[in-house]
Amino acid sequence: MRGPADNAELALLLEVSGTPKPGNVDREREYPELLFEQFLAGAVGARSGFELAAEGGRVGRAFERAVAGMAEQRAGNTQFGAILAVTPLVAASARDALDRTGVQAVIDATTVADSADFFRAFDHVEVAVREPPAGMEALDVRRGSDCVPAVEERGITLGELLERSAAVDGVAAELSGGFPRTFEGAATLLDGRGSVTERASQLYIDLLASEPDTFVITHHDRETALEVRDRARAVRAGEADPAAFAEELIERRINPGTTADVVAAALFVALERGLEV
Amino acid sequence: MRGPADNAELALLLEVSGTPKPGNVDREREYPELLFEQFLAGAVGARSGFELAAEGGRVGRAFERAVAGMAEQRAGNTQFGAILAVTPLVAASARDALDRTGVQAVIDATTVADSADFFRAFDHVEVAVREPPAGMEALDVRRGSDCVPAVEERGITLGELLERSAAVDGVAAELSGGFPRTFEGAATLLDGRGSVTERASQLYIDLLASEPDTFVITHHDRETALEVRDRARAVRAGEADPAAFAEELIERRINPGTTADVVAAALFVALERGLEV
Repeated sequence: MRGPADNAELALLLEVSGTPKPGNVDREREYPELLFEQFLAGAVGARSGFELAAEGGRVGRAFERAVAGMAEQRAGNTQFGAILAVTPLVAASARDALDRTGVQAVIDATTVADSADFFRAFDHVEVAVREPPAGMEALDVRRGSDCVPAVEERGITLGELLERSAAVDGVAAELSGGFPRTFEGAATLLDGRGSVTERASQLYIDLLASEPDTFVITHHDRETALEVRDRARAVRAGEADPAAFAEELIERRINPGTTADVVAAALFVALERGLEV
Repeated sequence: MRGPADNAELALLLEVSGTPKPGNVDREREYPELLFEQFLAGAVGARSGFELAAEGGRVGRAFERAVAGMAEQRAGNTQFGAILAVTPLVAASARDALDRTGVQAVIDATTVADSADFFRAFDHVEVAVREPPAGMEALDVRRGSDCVPAVEERGITLGELLERSAAVDGVAAELSGGFPRTFEGAATLLDGRGSVTERASQLYIDLLASEPDTFVITHHDRETALEVRDRARAVRAGEADPAAFAEELIERRINPGTTADVVAAALFVALERGLEV
């Protein structure tokens, strides 16, 4: 029987294998500096962090370890957001409480030490984030562990930190809000038809059509994210070809990473609830 | 740093992701009852057996555990041969002796208990093998653990058992002969150009061109295996299109599984020797 760490790793592998997944690396499309195989190595590398979460280790520490392992391939950041989304779900599953209340309790129980670990995780990779708001320069995640003294001085827990980012980061919004899209997505996956990777691709399009992707907003702008959302709606309505849409987004280097992260999280929950591969 | 169990799992993942890999499941081709995603789950499932081998556990026991884990997906047998090839290599690596002499020592040290485990592994999956020769019905692997009393009575070690199959099974030939194609393949991978999955695909074609695949001989016949070898030679010489060859073999349900198993083993050795992903 696969345990939570196995399913966390498998969720990352299945996520990258869903195709088409417009704009993101999938089985049939990759960027020259971001290869499919690097996502495989990233998932294998993340495992020891997931194991720590499954053993009841601190969420921040497990996350940081998973990111450090993930980063041991040449592309650097492959699955930072997916790991951030999946790690507290693994922790909830280890407590036999993998539901919205259970994972909310995991987030609520995070401490300043988890925040510090969260900042340390940024030492392992370059992650595209926004400029911090005025007065928040001391907590600019791009500075990684250099921010730890400020985090400790201000006494901010990981839960509080994520809440501050929820408005601009879709993964933080999941963690702060009890993972609404994740659990809904898991139900969709369990109810779906076809192979797991087909269901993952379908869920990706559904989620992309439902909200502008915050990663696209950060990397490009809101207008681009809205355009992508509307195009995904057209694909879902059968009015546009998903493969052509995928090619175009790769060409334009628009990758809706937040949406992929939520798919990974939903896959984890669905696997834990009995989705068969 | 990835350890041997990580690299063993990653080798299985990279193997199935090489494309094209004519006749076998790859990133772009699958059989309706044998999906890409089932190889992902198979690799994740095999991991606990690889961990046992990395911790110095008995090779037979580690193999049987890896096969049991691999089989926890709907397709059943996805990577039996690859696991058989990789497990003793993991054991050799754990002894800091990952070379032809070191892995030969691992095979030479196998006992009757390892043979018994080998037969037990067949309880988890259906594996296509030949009819046993006359007088060997008591050791028909298809009977799985029912054969254990006969194995113990005759006192056959796993090394001896594999030697008996070496003439008709290319994976057994690797294990019995110090893994010649595996180590040569690893050197080719390390010297190669392009992404790891591109190198794996190229190595697959090279190996397919070098010898008739014993899995094809078992499932079809020697004539078919020779035809496939000659077609692979034409692909290598640039006289045939690899993608068209891949489509045709899938259509005809000819899958050179032994060749894929050797690629997985070569990938493991190359990763352990520093091949970067």
